Amino acid sequence: MTRIRFALAQIDTCVGDLAKNASSVLEFARVAAQRHSQVVVFPEMTLTGYPIEDLAFRATFRKAAADKAEQLAQTLDSEGLGGLYVIVGTVGSVNGGGNGAEQADAVERLGVVGGSGDSDKPTNRLVVLHDGKVVADYDKHFLPNYGVFDEFRIFAAGDHSAVLDIEGVKIGVAICEDIWQDGGPVARLADRGIDVLLTINGSPYEEGKTHTRFELARRRAKEVNAPLIYLNQVGGQDDLVFDGGSFVVDRDGTLIERSPMFMEDLSYFDFDSSSTRQPVGTVAPLRDPDEEIYTACVLGLKDYMAKNRFTGVVLGLSGGIDSALVAAMAADAVGGANVYGVSMPSMYSSDGSKDDAADLARNIGAHYDIQPIEPLFKAFQTRLKLDGVAAENLQARIRGVIVMAYSNLKNLLALATGNKSELACGYSTIYGDAVGGYAPIKDLLKTRVWELSRWRNRAAAAGVGIGGLQIVGNENGSTGVPLKAGVMIPVASIEKAPSAELRPGQKDSDSLPEYALLDKVLEAYIEKAHGRADLLRDGFDEKTVDTVMRLVDRAEWKRRQYPLGPKVTALAFGRDRRLPITSAFRE
Amino acid sequence: MTRIRFALAQIDTCVGDLAKNASSVLEFARVAAQRHSQVVVFPEMTLTGYPIEDLAFRATFRKAAADKAEQLAQTLDSEGLGGLYVIVGTVGSVNGGGNGAEQADAVERLGVVGGSGDSDKPTNRLVVLHDGKVVADYDKHFLPNYGVFDEFRIFAAGDHSAVLDIEGVKIGVAICEDIWQDGGPVARLADRGIDVLLTINGSPYEEGKTHTRFELARRRAKEVNAPLIYLNQVGGQDDLVFDGGSFVVDRDGTLIERSPMFMEDLSYFDFDSSSTRQPVGTVAPLRDPDEEIYTACVLGLKDYMAKNRFTGVVLGLSGGIDSALVAAMAADAVGGANVYGVSMPSMYSSDGSKDDAADLARNIGAHYDIQPIEPLFKAFQTRLKLDGVAAENLQARIRGVIVMAYSNLKNLLALATGNKSELACGYSTIYGDAVGGYAPIKDLLKTRVWELSRWRNRAAAAGVGIGGLQIVGNENGSTGVPLKAGVMIPVASIEKAPSAELRPGQKDSDSLPEYALLDKVLEAYIEKAHGRADLLRDGFDEKTVDTVMRLVDRAEWKRRQYPLGPKVTALAFGRDRRLPITSAFRE
Repeated sequence: MTRIRFALAQIDTCVGDLAKNASSVLEFARVAAQRHSQVVVFPEMTLTGYPIEDLAFRATFRKAAADKAEQLAQTLDSEGLGGLYVIVGTVGSVNGGGNGAEQADAVERLGVVGGSGDSDKPTNRLVVLHDGKVVADYDKHFLPNYGVFDEFRIFAAGDHSAVLDIEGVKIGVAICEDIWQDGGPVARLADRGIDVLLTINGSPYEEGKTHTRFELARRRAKEVNAPLIYLNQVGGQDDLVFDGGSFVVDRDGTLIERSPMFMEDLSYFDFDSSSTRQPVGTVAPLRDPDEEIYTACVLGLKDYMAKNRFTGVVLGLSGGIDSALVAAMAADAVGGANVYGVSMPSMYSSDGSKDDAADLARNIGAHYDIQPIEPLFKAFQTRLKLDGVAAENLQARIRGVIVMAYSNLKNLLALATGNKSELACGYSTIYGDAVGGYAPIKDLLKTRVWELSRWRNRAAAAGVGIGGLQIVGNENGSTGVPLKAGVMIPVASIEKAPSAELRPGQKDSDSLPEYALLDKVLEAYIEKAHGRADLLRDGFDEKTVDTVMRLVDRAEWKRRQYPLGPKVTALAFGRDRRLPITSAFRE
Repeated sequence: MTRIRFALAQIDTCVGDLAKNASSVLEFARVAAQRHSQVVVFPEMTLTGYPIEDLAFRATFRKAAADKAEQLAQTLDSEGLGGLYVIVGTVGSVNGGGNGAEQADAVERLGVVGGSGDSDKPTNRLVVLHDGKVVADYDKHFLPNYGVFDEFRIFAAGDHSAVLDIEGVKIGVAICEDIWQDGGPVARLADRGIDVLLTINGSPYEEGKTHTRFELARRRAKEVNAPLIYLNQVGGQDDLVFDGGSFVVDRDGTLIERSPMFMEDLSYFDFDSSSTRQPVGTVAPLRDPDEEIYTACVLGLKDYMAKNRFTGVVLGLSGGIDSALVAAMAADAVGGANVYGVSMPSMYSSDGSKDDAADLARNIGAHYDIQPIEPLFKAFQTRLKLDGVAAENLQARIRGVIVMAYSNLKNLLALATGNKSELACGYSTIYGDAVGGYAPIKDLLKTRVWELSRWRNRAAAAGVGIGGLQIVGNENGSTGVPLKAGVMIPVASIEKAPSAELRPGQKDSDSLPEYALLDKVLEAYIEKAHGRADLLRDGFDEKTVDTVMRLVDRAEWKRRQYPLGPKVTALAFGRDRRLPITSAFRE
């Protein structure tokens, strides 16, 4: 009988920060060793961070990553941790094991499962550190190239499967997409027979994905007839949030371990080779769905700021629900004292809106300035004499200039407060309210904005406060202000009819269908890619369908036209390098 | 002895405009038939336009394209052109020949050259229209996924080679990337033996690419031991310019035909099966390198406007060289009467600059307004009290608001006038001078901006005028104003030291290395991807290298942060649809 303790190190890495990521591995490995683990598992591309995009093409970066893996193996050994098997992800190269990684006897090559022609292309690699060396590696076979993934563009596919033999226990390895596709390395591992399937992942958060991942893992565990370890990264990286929620399923599909979501964690799985059933360990509870999404938004913002070294944010506070929710999220992420709210009333702003903005700022402990735009609007109009939409855009753009002035002046991250419903329909001004470096609720439909605002108020009323959100890093002292039990987001902001207040008596419903209906159509048209015929079959009326399709198509066209560096001519053939925003790597 | 006349139909398509593209095919096919052609060849993805990006995923679009191909075959037949072999590109589906295309006896399947698992994925397809039907198809095998190309993301690879047999003459076919990669369908065709290799292309313009394509084609012609027809599309499509320049090389590598660049064209190649050498036909001369690039920029802008239904442009005219060159290009593209130049002098603008802006506007026959920004700047400063870079940005952003007001008011396309040197170094204001929907000189280094300005003046002085540029469409009546022989771009704009004029006495050289040096470093760092060590080996001094690397890396970081729809959270997993900007398709 053999017992092996696997430590599941669910960590938050930063793209390009080889030193910090390696030191995080070391720290978690020390604790895992103290707790008598034999194997410590880290997420996909641990050392480099994930996704690294075009950083993969930099030879200096790949060399530095290979050096770091070697050096980390030596450090572990010199600390007396050489006996541990430390499994980390990194960037590799086809036909090269970095700085001379050798395949230890423990690793059995299972033959070619896929071909790759490129001899110098980077790979998405798993390495095993042991006895002061990189003793084995495995390159990801299936390279996702859909949705947010562009891996086929960047990486070459691996051409071998790998099985690690520890005290007679055969551990098959796979990286993320490898278990999402039928066939390939997992099928090959199933044929050969393994005792444990271990997968390292960088799987971004999506509503409902916990369930999808679990069902997939159950299927694969049955396929290989062995327990499956699913280790996921946690944290925000550019436009993605990784939710963690690592878990283990037994060969019969039973959930036997689950790590919490949205925080770093170290959990354990004790494998017993003499038993066909593994014992159930700690299973973290799931969160309330509203709390889950709210926390994803806050973690994304918090990590984006920390990794890009922003300490404060600025945003316009209109008194409406969108800016109120964004401000609340920002206060939860970095503390109200680091939030600068600017009220920029015009001649069309209601007194109620101004009061609501001030109340919100007071509730979250934010800085609050009032910058009336009427004199500026009049100064422009002396010459331009705009009317209609052009005059509405002018108001929004004056506000954009003011927000950017605060951003420049105090090095604050400008937050755009648009929600998905209005952005999808183009109910937004380019260079106006769309101004900002980060848009925390860009992917929330308006109805969801209301739901999350109500949830946040319930949490505040229950006195859960900010610490209760268990946001990563909060254990080292909450960055938020303690909330008195009560309302956080003014009830009027939630309940009043939405208005851009760019002309007298304006309501969103003058231009858009009611949000309850609009959001349903948007979900079908955008998320489910239903065409016109599908939408009519879905039961939406023709007028609504045609209105929404026209608005969305036009908004998309506008958005594609107006990126910042607006358009390239084709002279310098090839697009701009697609480097990560967040990257600590410097050549 | 068999003689076959191939007509090379180098046309300008529009993405999504199935009706217009098909009617263009019909029109060129009629002329080709009158001139006794047996085969007419059109560019890659003729019917759909190219590149279609995520439009490929729309089932309705693919169905419409398949219907259009069938219908076009019938129309050709009903006009008595059924005997022609009309070769067009379109979108297909794996495991399906659209509306039931059948493989005619003329087509020999050569077996599997590559696999594809997806049964419903779109393909990049060539179809042969003949006798009122789609008689054969071929799906692109190599799907480029580097630089500007994302085809692997969109398409499934084809799994057969195809040879068309016309009167005993064997014509092998390939699509674009198929001839850029070794092996695959071309190697297979070489093994089987063909009489002519025919490739249809959507190959974007790049400086020096004419030579690269020619050398590649010579190599492939020798490989298959047959003449090679290289048919390329022409015209601007979103951020790409296709230059045409279709050609034919004989089996020994001799150039025997070349179509002109940057214009639609119909040329002919007479193949004689009894001869091992084909006669040399018409070889269009190459252009002056400056003229070539200038024309590419003008054609890109002209087509972007026409295909997106813009009739006029607005831009700020500072009196500097960048805005002057952009204005000249715009006048050449759509005529000076459709160009709105706005001078927006501040307290720091020199009299010389104001005069130069006015001279330029007069030279090209543009509308010209003066909108002083000092009163607006003061109105903002009453409250904001900015200084340093923040105050400089404020001036640029006020100008951005004014440019967008003109754009909104008259439905004009706002042109951003930044050049590649300053954009690469971040010497530009987000939401300020970077404002615009199209940036004609975004890919021209500053030294190139000067060179093209001098070339344009020489052309004007020589009285070549605008017609001499042979821009597509100009044959149907020049859209430009006839220039009197003489200077077009004020000499002072070319010769004075560059300055942003955002503070007293400011010069670009206060912040940046001299452009002659800077541009060399940028070319090495950006285009050649040289790292720091490489740059020092290139002979650049350490201080310059470090300055430029710091500026470029920071600018890139800023640019990634500030796209318009600023950032997505990960809630609606998956990125925005990547649809073409220019697309006439409506579901």
